[in-house]
Amino acid sequence: MKPTQSSRSNLTILLSSEEQQRRIDRVRSLMRADAAAPDALLITDYANLYYLTGRVFAGMLYLPLDGEPICFVRRPVHLEGPETKSIRKPEDMAKTLAGTMPGRLGLELDLVPYATVKRLSAIFPEASIVSASAIMRAARAVKTDEEIEMIRRSGVSHCEVYSRIPQLYQDGMTDIELQVEIERVSRLEGCLGEFRISGSSMEIYMGNILVGDNADAASPYDFAMGGAGLDPSLPVGADGTLITPGTTVMADMNGDFTGYMTDMTRVFSLGEISPLARQAHECSREIHRQLRKMAVPGTPASSLNEKAVEIVKQHGLEKYFMGHRQQAGFIGHGVGIEINEAPVIAPRSRDILEANNVIALEPKFVIPGTGAVGIENTYRVTPEGLENLTPAPEEIIPLEK
Amino acid sequence: MKPTQSSRSNLTILLSSEEQQRRIDRVRSLMRADAAAPDALLITDYANLYYLTGRVFAGMLYLPLDGEPICFVRRPVHLEGPETKSIRKPEDMAKTLAGTMPGRLGLELDLVPYATVKRLSAIFPEASIVSASAIMRAARAVKTDEEIEMIRRSGVSHCEVYSRIPQLYQDGMTDIELQVEIERVSRLEGCLGEFRISGSSMEIYMGNILVGDNADAASPYDFAMGGAGLDPSLPVGADGTLITPGTTVMADMNGDFTGYMTDMTRVFSLGEISPLARQAHECSREIHRQLRKMAVPGTPASSLNEKAVEIVKQHGLEKYFMGHRQQAGFIGHGVGIEINEAPVIAPRSRDILEANNVIALEPKFVIPGTGAVGIENTYRVTPEGLENLTPAPEEIIPLEK
Repeated sequence: MKPTQSSRSNLTILLSSEEQQRRIDRVRSLMRADAAAPDALLITDYANLYYLTGRVFAGMLYLPLDGEPICFVRRPVHLEGPETKSIRKPEDMAKTLAGTMPGRLGLELDLVPYATVKRLSAIFPEASIVSASAIMRAARAVKTDEEIEMIRRSGVSHCEVYSRIPQLYQDGMTDIELQVEIERVSRLEGCLGEFRISGSSMEIYMGNILVGDNADAASPYDFAMGGAGLDPSLPVGADGTLITPGTTVMADMNGDFTGYMTDMTRVFSLGEISPLARQAHECSREIHRQLRKMAVPGTPASSLNEKAVEIVKQHGLEKYFMGHRQQAGFIGHGVGIEINEAPVIAPRSRDILEANNVIALEPKFVIPGTGAVGIENTYRVTPEGLENLTPAPEEIIPLEK
Repeated sequence: MKPTQSSRSNLTILLSSEEQQRRIDRVRSLMRADAAAPDALLITDYANLYYLTGRVFAGMLYLPLDGEPICFVRRPVHLEGPETKSIRKPEDMAKTLAGTMPGRLGLELDLVPYATVKRLSAIFPEASIVSASAIMRAARAVKTDEEIEMIRRSGVSHCEVYSRIPQLYQDGMTDIELQVEIERVSRLEGCLGEFRISGSSMEIYMGNILVGDNADAASPYDFAMGGAGLDPSLPVGADGTLITPGTTVMADMNGDFTGYMTDMTRVFSLGEISPLARQAHECSREIHRQLRKMAVPGTPASSLNEKAVEIVKQHGLEKYFMGHRQQAGFIGHGVGIEINEAPVIAPRSRDILEANNVIALEPKFVIPGTGAVGIENTYRVTPEGLENLTPAPEEIIPLEK
């Protein structure tokens, strides 16, 4: 299936007013429960705007606890709709809001640059500024049925792309050459490409193919795995390593086909790989099996991490777990519009699982001399345990024809 | 040329200590000249870290006016070197800096989130916090010879990729199908993919292919051109439009092959296109010819914009210039590590051209019923005028075999 104008209509679902109201109600209930008790939020982050309006625009969403939300739109210039006001600059909001200024205004203080916060604050001289970051993060952590449907559709396409990887491999390929062919197939399948990450701590282009010992090259970014990358300006992922017999190829490619992403990793191999690598891969699958049952609403996210480490220790594989030269401090994370949503599955996480969290679990190992092994799936949290949104074969898949 | 481990060594030039000193000296001279007069900068932005150290790392560069700069590195954990200190969290800097705390500390206030600025400020309780944004922007606007060499090498690869576009076209292709084939060739030529943009106001994946009337779809982003995009979560660029006779295909794809980007646009056509579109394309070329001579050190950036508008008016093409339904407010911009550097070529720009500025000029038109026309080149500012770093045929190039 190629993305043509007709098939694209499947992907281009703008928010219905009922769905928008559902999300606004959720944010408002979190505003009421928040210790800082904002009377209104002023949202500028694109991912949060997309969540609350179904589209990305340059401007701001003003969301009061009571009364109608207002979209203040700078670009595109022709965007129209109820409660949409065209502005040239943020200061133009003041006239519309005169007489209804909030006492406590929530801004995304974890994301918005200092200078922008100062500029926006000056438009609300009477308001005290509080953080909206935790509210928006908590709102987006629990997905609506429509959001889960979009993630599910991304998962179907994601699995389809991975099923074609063995046919894309040609003798003598490097990691990056294989990655480029996967990128092509993925884009033709409808992948939007953009790898949405909240904040600016991580950068990556379209995903990560790790071959052999490049998996053991430490990266500056907070991804689970590293790789040296092709250039010091983007030190992550494929580095031109030739795919040789006895090495593994770990594929962790972009799963954004709908505006909502799945996160999924599978491992491929050339020739016979070491028994230690096979054992570690099976250990990853065992962790998934046990966590799938254990992860129900009410489960502390940290206990999933503890359980994973316990299973790893039973297998004596600690020194390879979540990296070897550099080890990641988490085994999973929320996923949706962005790749780093709540909850965080880490030792000191205070997050408690809720129904309709969507989480990626990625217990992985780096085995020196062989490469990276282990799988990652994206799951929905349900009262019966985890529902797999990336159902595809989980064994190590041979690249040979 | 494919990116293999041997060819990659050409791309992987880490900064020599002489080159690093050159950049640090430049930043320090701007610190001394700055009205806020910082005694030290604390740099966290990846593009600025890459500029000052030749690599990306998670952490901070502390750059005092006098004394040695110190890299505080959180990840990768094994990064070592002179004046490199490993930290787990920003607060760990305090011990190293005790006794040499600055009176006025410069942070990148236009880029760093409010909450991060608050956290970093608390580590320097005696310091007043001032902005380092203008200093870093001004430093990076004038390129060193080594930086220009990296941009020049990107330009060579960028031109090579564009020369292959006519062979990539197949009958019946949509914009996105052609784009995916260009992406593949570009990546195999060594394109790093990541489209580096300062701040979070713009998002794009690998570049923009605009066909026919999709060029007239307004986007939220501050790019010169728009396009509806494939999905409301990423409303820019190709939207699945079929390439039909009489339409133009504007290619404005990622030129980052070395960590430094060129920005380059060329136009392709299928069948006979309208005389108005051909006239507008020639007008763009005429603007380039005249600005190439006019743009010397000391020229106000705004005067280039004025000259372009004057030429457009002579041709009676104002209503198509820089867009039709939505018009961009600039005709050019600095380019280097990121796509939106200084100087800005816009009506109200206060920037004055300096030798070794690198600027992209993109006088473009959107002709309803045909599509976008006009070219974009990346130029170096020299006393003799502009030197073209993206030398490639500038006429409208037929896609037919």
